[in-house]
Amino acid sequence: MSAINAQNATEAIDLCVLANRILANEGLFDGFGHVSVRNPENPQTFFQSCSVSPEFVNHDDILELDLEGNVVTKTDKKPYGERVIHSAILKARPDVNAIYHGHPFEVIPFSSLNIPIRPIIYPGSMFYEGIPLYDAYDVSCGMLVTSKEEGARLARVLGMKRGLIMRDHGLVVVGENVPLMVNGAIFCRDNAKVQYQTLALGANPKYISYEEGYEAFRKVTNDLTVSRMWDYWVKRVRKSNMAIERREYGR
Amino acid sequence: MSAINAQNATEAIDLCVLANRILANEGLFDGFGHVSVRNPENPQTFFQSCSVSPEFVNHDDILELDLEGNVVTKTDKKPYGERVIHSAILKARPDVNAIYHGHPFEVIPFSSLNIPIRPIIYPGSMFYEGIPLYDAYDVSCGMLVTSKEEGARLARVLGMKRGLIMRDHGLVVVGENVPLMVNGAIFCRDNAKVQYQTLALGANPKYISYEEGYEAFRKVTNDLTVSRMWDYWVKRVRKSNMAIERREYGR
Amino acid sequence: MSAINAQNATEAIDLCVLANRILANEGLFDGFGHVSVRNPENPQTFFQSCSVSPEFVNHDDILELDLEGNVVTKTDKKPYGERVIHSAILKARPDVNAIYHGHPFEVIPFSSLNIPIRPIIYPGSMFYEGIPLYDAYDVSCGMLVTSKEEGARLARVLGMKRGLIMRDHGLVVVGENVPLMVNGAIFCRDNAKVQYQTLALGANPKYISYEEGYEAFRKVTNDLTVSRMWDYWVKRVRKSNMAIERREYGR
Amino acid sequence: MSAINAQNATEAIDLCVLANRILANEGLFDGFGHVSVRNPENPQTFFQSCSVSPEFVNHDDILELDLEGNVVTKTDKKPYGERVIHSAILKARPDVNAIYHGHPFEVIPFSSLNIPIRPIIYPGSMFYEGIPLYDAYDVSCGMLVTSKEEGARLARVLGMKRGLIMRDHGLVVVGENVPLMVNGAIFCRDNAKVQYQTLALGANPKYISYEEGYEAFRKVTNDLTVSRMWDYWVKRVRKSNMAIERREYGR
Repeated sequence: MSAINAQNATEAIDLCVLANRILANEGLFDGFGHVSVRNPENPQTFFQSCSVSPEFVNHDDILELDLEGNVVTKTDKKPYGERVIHSAILKARPDVNAIYHGHPFEVIPFSSLNIPIRPIIYPGSMFYEGIPLYDAYDVSCGMLVTSKEEGARLARVLGMKRGLIMRDHGLVVVGENVPLMVNGAIFCRDNAKVQYQTLALGANPKYISYEEGYEAFRKVTNDLTVSRMWDYWVKRVRKSNMAIERREYGR
Repeated sequence: MSAINAQNATEAIDLCVLANRILANEGLFDGFGHVSVRNPENPQTFFQSCSVSPEFVNHDDILELDLEGNVVTKTDKKPYGERVIHSAILKARPDVNAIYHGHPFEVIPFSSLNIPIRPIIYPGSMFYEGIPLYDAYDVSCGMLVTSKEEGARLARVLGMKRGLIMRDHGLVVVGENVPLMVNGAIFCRDNAKVQYQTLALGANPKYISYEEGYEAFRKVTNDLTVSRMWDYWVKRVRKSNMAIERREYGR
Repeated sequence: MSAINAQNATEAIDLCVLANRILANEGLFDGFGHVSVRNPENPQTFFQSCSVSPEFVNHDDILELDLEGNVVTKTDKKPYGERVIHSAILKARPDVNAIYHGHPFEVIPFSSLNIPIRPIIYPGSMFYEGIPLYDAYDVSCGMLVTSKEEGARLARVLGMKRGLIMRDHGLVVVGENVPLMVNGAIFCRDNAKVQYQTLALGANPKYISYEEGYEAFRKVTNDLTVSRMWDYWVKRVRKSNMAIERREYGR
Repeated sequence: MSAINAQNATEAIDLCVLANRILANEGLFDGFGHVSVRNPENPQTFFQSCSVSPEFVNHDDILELDLEGNVVTKTDKKPYGERVIHSAILKARPDVNAIYHGHPFEVIPFSSLNIPIRPIIYPGSMFYEGIPLYDAYDVSCGMLVTSKEEGARLARVLGMKRGLIMRDHGLVVVGENVPLMVNGAIFCRDNAKVQYQTLALGANPKYISYEEGYEAFRKVTNDLTVSRMWDYWVKRVRKSNMAIERREYGR
């Protein structure tokens, strides 16, 4: 999958901007939420937008941060308050190079009712090993994860999984690279939507089994499939006039 | 939050027009509904469009009204029939400077079934103190609130809260300034949508608790967050070609 | 309401085209469905498009038909197979000058389950006298109403009401003029949508009562309100680039 | 229906591209899914895009394949992994000349819960003879149908029917020609949507009966209706700026 792995910091920044735009275009972001991409030139830092809404992130919004959540870039721009979600996971998971955090409505009922999300559509098999629930908030942080302690705790609950839902709050999805993270975020939302509709209609749906999911995971994450989907998301965001080359839009 | 508080009548009128356009763009209005903004130069009057649909409100539609609901502006233009909702609340609540009234479908089931709206998404914590139900209509007014008596009664039911649902009719949201009112209207609708989906799937969701909501309210209403969201709504409405500078559109 | 009543055949044809475009723009039509407008110059005939999809109806598609469903216009163009719905109602109801028939998904569950549609949003009070269910199909007509006998039977089931649902098929809404018919179609769909959501959440919602509806009906159908809504639908369809002046679009 | 049957290979390729675009425009495709059209000049081969997303299929993406799923065209382009769904059905069903396979969310709950899809809207009567469920996956294929053996098994489960749902995966719809296949895919999705909403509201809806469906099937599949709908889909996709003549878009 080398073609879709960032080879240097410039490519990582490009992918970070594009991932923000793509995920907004596919409905994975409201005004809040964020993306991070590890720096291929220095795995102890990562790239992330300053505090602006993902739909409107531009290249000059991207900051470099370290794995304690400190801003390395010399700038007056403010980072996201919840950047510790990203720094804590990137510290705990050397296999992860890209992270999504957002608030798709589709996952909230599962988090509030503590109903596990299980694969019920083919691409949902990306999550065949399960999606843990985070419900260990510091009450004084007001449902946000803004302290290093809570970031580390969230990373522990995530463990080696690919996604995590936060009670009454949202979703975290990680990937080995940006396209896998983007696919994971979109497919997790889609799977939750279909699982919701199914459970609202009847009990005991026949989910994709662990063994089915094990095989399907390998299909949906192979190089060819990931490249094809990435090509699709990029074409769609360009078609929506939200592409990078028009990033002056809205100013 | 001074930058987002109107400093004079001109700014208040600008914000009033923009709030109409933003809230229509975010799906908070059908053909009916209205916004009001208190006059910073005279707290005994407020600004509101004449009787046109919010999606198409322009600067020259804005009227000045007093707290009895009388039109102060010399004009032949007709005011909204339900302007007393605004005048009565602005009279009873000196802390309030901006009001939304609309009919988002998402809140109606809660009003018809008398199920309290409770915070289940982070920004829904704006309403952690609860949202009362108004169901004391004068039958002869045909489900509208058009008399001063009924306006005053509605203001009493609202009390010191931030929002109120009207049975089989709609929603009222108030704010200290326009951005807080806009956020409140959008987040209340969003919270109702997610709470609906959750309750349709299972009983006894784990809501955001009062203590969690107390803290989260302070996060979601702080200056930085409100400014960021305002910037987001403005960019979105411009992107939708509904912005003020194109207000000749549709003529 | 004289300004929104067609005064002559030319105005009636204009309104017929515009109503097709407006109702398609508001989601009331799929590829099928139709509108009719009585001829103000000859109440024994009416105007209706030839057999094309409402979203793309143009002036030169409009035919004149008589109250038996015969095409009066000299043309090779084919009329709609279900034109007898319109001719039969216009014959039975001299008070009616405009009719909508379409298939909004929102009303189908009510028709299949024989659950009455009842007012639960303010504009839904247009239907406070009830909406009968038609389920007396000639099986040999394949769920369509294409014979004069079945058209007359459908008109009898409608009686003096403002709307009728057809089992597993769709909706008929009538009006004294085009704007009232357009409002009725849109508000009936909206009311069904909200009523559906409410009933899916809980039993025994508090509907708008008959007395409340009686008064609300008078509000929502008064000249001022109807004019304002008509202005709104027209601006929206123009904004969607579907307006009459662009009727060459799509060729 | 000769006007809508491809008369030669060039027309079949045109229809194949257009069907991909139309079905994407009507929401029948995500990034995956595919269309096939039998070659009128050689019924032992068919046309299908190489492995790109249907929304962006162009003329130069179209490959010729044989009924074993081998690519006949001299090219380096990769075919779809699931092309055996198409080759196996075209081999088993000489009456079929066009096939859709996609993953509309609306059908998944029926597949997971093994609830039969039954006609509940007029155009859903295209499926009055029933829609079988495929749940005989080779686990090692990861929920995809990529082997000739599994393709042949799927074709056996389809039998002489017009559609088939695949558990936790998607939908197959076949047609005598491209317009009938396109209508079938869209109407099956629509019918599933309405049936879902109905069953979520109440038990025992009154479906379109077998005899009603028998007659309605003949109406909805007659030449006039199919031509009108085809005209509608084509106009809509052009209006969405996704038409063939703009196929350079997005590059």
